Amino acid sequence: MLTYSFENIDTESMYEHLYRCIKQDILQKKLKSGEKLPSKRTFAKNLGVSTITVESAYAQLVAEGYLYTLPKRGYYVCELEKGEAPAQPRPKPVLPRQQPRPTYWADFVSSSVARDMFPFSIWVKLLRDVTAREDETTLLTDTSAGGIRQLRQAISEHLYQFRGMTIDPEQIVVGAGTEYLYSVLIQLLGRNHGYAVEDPGYLRLSKIYEKNDVRTYHIPMDASGIQPDLLEESGAEILHITPSHHFPTGIVMPVSRRYEFLSWASKGENRYIIEDDYDCEFRLAGRPIPTLQSIDVMEKVIYINTFSKSLAPAFRISYLVLPKHLVTRFYDTLGFYSGTVSCLEQMTLARFLSEGYFEKHINRMRNHYRGLRDQFLGAIQKSPLARRVKISEENAGLHFLMELDTQRSDKEILQRAEAEGLRLSFVSQYYFRQEERQAHVLVMNYSGLEEGRITEAVARLCRAILPAPEEPGL
Amino acid sequence: MLTYSFENIDTESMYEHLYRCIKQDILQKKLKSGEKLPSKRTFAKNLGVSTITVESAYAQLVAEGYLYTLPKRGYYVCELEKGEAPAQPRPKPVLPRQQPRPTYWADFVSSSVARDMFPFSIWVKLLRDVTAREDETTLLTDTSAGGIRQLRQAISEHLYQFRGMTIDPEQIVVGAGTEYLYSVLIQLLGRNHGYAVEDPGYLRLSKIYEKNDVRTYHIPMDASGIQPDLLEESGAEILHITPSHHFPTGIVMPVSRRYEFLSWASKGENRYIIEDDYDCEFRLAGRPIPTLQSIDVMEKVIYINTFSKSLAPAFRISYLVLPKHLVTRFYDTLGFYSGTVSCLEQMTLARFLSEGYFEKHINRMRNHYRGLRDQFLGAIQKSPLARRVKISEENAGLHFLMELDTQRSDKEILQRAEAEGLRLSFVSQYYFRQEERQAHVLVMNYSGLEEGRITEAVARLCRAILPAPEEPGL
Repeated sequence: MLTYSFENIDTESMYEHLYRCIKQDILQKKLKSGEKLPSKRTFAKNLGVSTITVESAYAQLVAEGYLYTLPKRGYYVCELEKGEAPAQPRPKPVLPRQQPRPTYWADFVSSSVARDMFPFSIWVKLLRDVTAREDETTLLTDTSAGGIRQLRQAISEHLYQFRGMTIDPEQIVVGAGTEYLYSVLIQLLGRNHGYAVEDPGYLRLSKIYEKNDVRTYHIPMDASGIQPDLLEESGAEILHITPSHHFPTGIVMPVSRRYEFLSWASKGENRYIIEDDYDCEFRLAGRPIPTLQSIDVMEKVIYINTFSKSLAPAFRISYLVLPKHLVTRFYDTLGFYSGTVSCLEQMTLARFLSEGYFEKHINRMRNHYRGLRDQFLGAIQKSPLARRVKISEENAGLHFLMELDTQRSDKEILQRAEAEGLRLSFVSQYYFRQEERQAHVLVMNYSGLEEGRITEAVARLCRAILPAPEEPGL
Repeated sequence: MLTYSFENIDTESMYEHLYRCIKQDILQKKLKSGEKLPSKRTFAKNLGVSTITVESAYAQLVAEGYLYTLPKRGYYVCELEKGEAPAQPRPKPVLPRQQPRPTYWADFVSSSVARDMFPFSIWVKLLRDVTAREDETTLLTDTSAGGIRQLRQAISEHLYQFRGMTIDPEQIVVGAGTEYLYSVLIQLLGRNHGYAVEDPGYLRLSKIYEKNDVRTYHIPMDASGIQPDLLEESGAEILHITPSHHFPTGIVMPVSRRYEFLSWASKGENRYIIEDDYDCEFRLAGRPIPTLQSIDVMEKVIYINTFSKSLAPAFRISYLVLPKHLVTRFYDTLGFYSGTVSCLEQMTLARFLSEGYFEKHINRMRNHYRGLRDQFLGAIQKSPLARRVKISEENAGLHFLMELDTQRSDKEILQRAEAEGLRLSFVSQYYFRQEERQAHVLVMNYSGLEEGRITEAVARLCRAILPAPEEPGL
């Protein structure tokens, strides 16, 4: 009769050990398909273990499909047809580590956040309050597709105070980042329409549309934004734009162009405008630019914004504001989805907004960035760069444009900058249509620059951009 | 000359007031397109305000496109062509509130979580620790597409301890819920392949595939799972299954069927198996069933699981385990995406896992559910229901099946249950193909049942299901 040793079974329980021994014998065909196993009682006696041990091991093998039972007759080995078990345990796969992004001495491309700027202690305090005061069942189980009521209410009040938008909290859909919300919009509006995006523009956006198998049109811009006649020609039905602050050129779309697009949208049932208001919080001078959404009376504008820019990139909370009729469509067709942001985090953010911490935080950040920009621009003005650069668009968002008077190619400057530990990008890199590229205009995102490094950063920029003494011709 | 009153300007600043007045006059055509505005100095003197006030108002109107400047000549009104401003401020949209889900006295359909089971105080403590100890820059800016390293490491260790899976943390992709990760998989594997799902099965899954414009095949099951010949016939290339615990039937796929599917997958380059291990933590007796992933030597199995079941639905953290070659493809094609779970929450969960709290939590939940199930089944056995029901699949997951010996239609029972405040569902409701439906089998999800309500719940079930005294024929 079948027998196994129960010595050296370490931390395994008796039944687990027996289960593993029998399973191995089945896999190695020592126990053949159809073979009858000893009865529980006999086997237990023979092995010197309890009947329950054998019973548990058999039950597990039945559950996993290695044994089957015939009532009143006993346990038999299943046929493991059509396929072989691997003879050896699999080696642990070893993959190359994903390379962490290279670090630069100063990075003028990525949006980053000044250290120590985020009020973690307030966030943790609010979170603790939330766990202590809010209904636990809600905190554990609210997965509403549109987001929790408290957060939508708080966002709606924030938009009224800060953007002059009067919207119903029901129009808001909260999601884990704008990239995710783009895919929600594609499901809501339809994958078959053409989507028009700005060229130059945010290249990641057209990549997302591409990965979602959506036809994308890159529409050239003039000084006011996308050109309406080229949009009309393209046949696109969804227009995705950044009217308050175009990336990378910084263009603010004038009101006349806005009305043209609203008029364009009203001419087709499936036409919609996605208004991407990605960094409106960081207009550093003057009033915020009013949104397209707030002058839309035809229910054609979908507003999208994120807290990833205003809190920090690692917070993944963004939102849509849908026109009324699309709210109904959203709940009819996509309302079955669970939300994508944890309820705890939504509730904490709701408090952060409604108790005034967000406004304070934004004001503090804006002051910080204004100071940073002024110091940085001041240092550039006092440096030899001053005569070789023209700076524009410095009041909006967290970047400005710096046009270079240089004989060097953009590529050469990028390489020289990299040798200085600087990460730079040119407007030309954000064009989809190569032939339109404008050379020599740097996009300077200064949000991650440390104050203590400003002087040295300008010196490095000089070395990367200006002609060396021995290159008088440049 | 143009003049405005500066009385009653409330909380507005002087320049905001002036800006608003001029803008209104432009919108109402009191100021006509092309008209020249007074020079800043003259206007300021006339209004009795400072030049800076006028300058700021003009600058804002230029930024928004209501005015333009001609160097050394002054400010002019833009043409607001092709479109009219709305004459009236928009009324605030009023939408019907989304109906909150109806509440039941006892809900045997939704997964819910026992109150007070989640260790909030530990979670908050860990979160505070994380904000105090971890590098702030990482916490604020890590948005890796696959999730943060610490969490992937912790998940990999958990899978080894709990599921016997040896995987590299690089194979793990963290995302905000399985629903979101399904859409990632579609982007990774391709929208053009057919996707096969179980029938009966989790209907929400095929709805998600449908919304993502993917062809879906509902493949009938036999007692071991999806029928391999019907799968082959369908032409589907991606097979989405729940081998450890099928919903709603509770079937555990025997090892022979598993090998058949692995063999099927190995026969086509684009064939893959998505192994949905949605509630493996809650097998209440015996060892966990080994995963399909752990016997896959051909890199054909993608494993998916979620913390929304094991922590609480309102935590939106799930993950994929990709085979090696798909890891490369993921980073090549989708690595540009930002992660969808906040870094703070990922870091906290990593600690929760690696410091043993998760295991404790799961054990505590499992004990709780085991006790709940035993009491509930005990109460049913002692009730008049005992002679009219057959119970099965009670060791796996958080539901069991209850087959009714009844003359009533399923529909009638649902209505009678609803009148008793009970939410029930039948296996028949989870079939895509109507003709295959099996009648009279209830799917009893007991996870949200309160202990104090068990006796009364059974009494209500009796009234809903059993014939009333005056209905002897039933």
